[in-house]
Amino acid sequence: MSSQFSFRLLTTDGAARRGEMTTAHGVVQTPAFMAVGTRGAVKGLTPRDLVGEGAEIILGNTYHLWLRPGDEVIARQGGLHRFIGWNRPILTDSGGFQAFSLGARRRIREEGIHFRSHLDGSEHLLTPEGATDIQARLGSDIAMALDECLAQPASFDAVRESTERTARWAQRCRERFLQLQSVIPANAGIQGWTQALAGVTRILAASQEVTDSRGNPNGDSDQPRFPTITNPGQAQFGIIQGGTDPSLRTLSVERTLAVGFEAYAIGGLSVGEPADIMYSVVEHTAPQLPAGRPRYLMGVGTPLDLVEAVARGIDLFDCVMPTRNARNGQLFTSHGRLTIKNARYAEDARPLDANCACYTCSNFSRAYLRHLFVVGEMTGAILNTVHNVRFYLDTMARIREAIVFGSLGSVQQALRSTFSRPLCDS
Amino acid sequence: MSSQFSFRLLTTDGAARRGEMTTAHGVVQTPAFMAVGTRGAVKGLTPRDLVGEGAEIILGNTYHLWLRPGDEVIARQGGLHRFIGWNRPILTDSGGFQAFSLGARRRIREEGIHFRSHLDGSEHLLTPEGATDIQARLGSDIAMALDECLAQPASFDAVRESTERTARWAQRCRERFLQLQSVIPANAGIQGWTQALAGVTRILAASQEVTDSRGNPNGDSDQPRFPTITNPGQAQFGIIQGGTDPSLRTLSVERTLAVGFEAYAIGGLSVGEPADIMYSVVEHTAPQLPAGRPRYLMGVGTPLDLVEAVARGIDLFDCVMPTRNARNGQLFTSHGRLTIKNARYAEDARPLDANCACYTCSNFSRAYLRHLFVVGEMTGAILNTVHNVRFYLDTMARIREAIVFGSLGSVQQALRSTFSRPLCDS
Repeated sequence: MSSQFSFRLLTTDGAARRGEMTTAHGVVQTPAFMAVGTRGAVKGLTPRDLVGEGAEIILGNTYHLWLRPGDEVIARQGGLHRFIGWNRPILTDSGGFQAFSLGARRRIREEGIHFRSHLDGSEHLLTPEGATDIQARLGSDIAMALDECLAQPASFDAVRESTERTARWAQRCRERFLQLQSVIPANAGIQGWTQALAGVTRILAASQEVTDSRGNPNGDSDQPRFPTITNPGQAQFGIIQGGTDPSLRTLSVERTLAVGFEAYAIGGLSVGEPADIMYSVVEHTAPQLPAGRPRYLMGVGTPLDLVEAVARGIDLFDCVMPTRNARNGQLFTSHGRLTIKNARYAEDARPLDANCACYTCSNFSRAYLRHLFVVGEMTGAILNTVHNVRFYLDTMARIREAIVFGSLGSVQQALRSTFSRPLCDS
Repeated sequence: MSSQFSFRLLTTDGAARRGEMTTAHGVVQTPAFMAVGTRGAVKGLTPRDLVGEGAEIILGNTYHLWLRPGDEVIARQGGLHRFIGWNRPILTDSGGFQAFSLGARRRIREEGIHFRSHLDGSEHLLTPEGATDIQARLGSDIAMALDECLAQPASFDAVRESTERTARWAQRCRERFLQLQSVIPANAGIQGWTQALAGVTRILAASQEVTDSRGNPNGDSDQPRFPTITNPGQAQFGIIQGGTDPSLRTLSVERTLAVGFEAYAIGGLSVGEPADIMYSVVEHTAPQLPAGRPRYLMGVGTPLDLVEAVARGIDLFDCVMPTRNARNGQLFTSHGRLTIKNARYAEDARPLDANCACYTCSNFSRAYLRHLFVVGEMTGAILNTVHNVRFYLDTMARIREAIVFGSLGSVQQALRSTFSRPLCDS
């Protein structure tokens, strides 16, 4: 493992795991949920809002940050943590998913993903080495390997081919990552790192192979051809693909474990497949991953998904659902989902959730939140987001506690009962 | 004066005054600036943001709150303070200005302002009594009398006629206000007020004249015909009109003082006239207002306007400029105005203003704020608003301190020098 990354399994409840993930920017209690800070901000929140509601780690999107303001800019600003004013752990994705879902005219080639920017149509190539370099510049605590996100449904052969390619890309990502790691002095801490950068620059510049950063987003010959590493303690996770076929998932696990990362994620789920398919893929895949490393289920999910996946051995989640739904007036409460624009809340003096201690529930009524939503006040989006993020974080805290007491099953039943129903206000 | 409203003049520096305004919800150090919470929220901020940056009083817009969610709804929620989660002082305007500026097909008649809602075209009539009742329901600490905001330029005769009508409306507003006050038990505090409401209801319902609330926005016959008073300690300010003609301003002062309010505002300025005209009207009018009462200059202004008006005897201000400009990326700093989208800030690691201790300047760089603005992140609008509001509040604090030390002239010179220049980044 990277010198500053470690994972300690504290206890288990069936397949569920209670752990502690240590990163270069601090400790994360797992199972954990990461709010999504797409473009360097969790929409509608400030870092103090996030800290106030108990967030220990957030996610940043490499694709967006690469295009704007640019990974080079962020590196020159001292890395993503410093740039966005967040000094707790950050995980960055590889950029692949957005290149697929947002990029235009995308083509997968062995070298990487060709696409045109959704912003200005400019041509880009995201390679495994490039995705690794960009994340080295961003300096997240956890970088993700570049994987191929195959559109579903796809034939067995297409999924197998894609899974094999993802494994080859994983190998290239890891090689690049280790190359970068190898030039970091063994005693480099974040504090002393600045002084070491000059040395890295010299070493990398002297290596023709290393300087060939195929992922250079602009293709400008005058750009530095080696990444500025802003976080020497960065870890790198590999991603398991394989669609919904168990044998391909197992193949992907074998290939990815053979490469060897600090930990592993399960990708390619929560892309439209039924929940029971997702749960069964997780149930099949998670136990094949090393028990001593955290397991991250990417892009998941609803509160029910969280507990169902934890019960199948998952430790880490991210999803835009709490933040996006908040802006759309969809709130999560201990009684189920609540649509704040509903006229029934026009004079409802109660908080969103009497069981919630967030800033919003401690100070504001449903009537006020409905008013703000109806008139389109930004403050409404802020207060809704504060609540939904807190609800997700509290759900994870409840799950963590239940694992310790061996009672995850009852939390699972409670969340099934709450979130399998229609909206609580319908 | 209303039992819970008072003003204490602490010291002066020339015409400038350092005072303390006590309201039913606490004390405001004057000269003071009120951030504008148009529809029950200062756009982009939460109450804790406002308190964190030192806001002591905010303004709410009666027109907007009357139409949505409705003054009756807010009254049933316990009044505006409780509804919006802000327990410090609130001043509400009369609704007249927005009825003029936003309402469609508006017609001024002696009874009041006829207009159609900018939201749904529904017909409304805002009368002096109605504006008073609506604000009684909102329960602001300071209510404003309904005035006529005449479009400029206008003939002397038109301004005189309008000024006379405003004086007649002031009389009707005050009579209504005193009627409502007269039924409030002398010992009613906010705490014990709920119990007194039933009594008020009975008394008002028995009075045919009082129940004829011509300002009933919906004209529904089944609506209560008497206002629920949510803040027994409310004060009421009269408004001086008279355009830019000194004799008409003097006429308006005489008429409005003859009515008698807890304090007085100067209206009808900052509506497009040159700054020197505004300053000279203030210089002419302010000294004619009682020294023992606060003087409020409505809808003003730039940082320079603030100090220039304070130097001419003004104590209270409101303006959307800090909040609106923040959302448009126009920041106020101790070096002048700054346009955050400017490319020169793309890699500027400095805070917006090294002399500012706001949350934004304490934690984030210009480069980050520019990025957030360019990509359109809501968090950028929040952070910009936090800064601009703090800049205005700090400017007032600086002005207050200078008055105490008899050095307002130097602050005036400094602000002239800073804000008479073009943008600091142009």
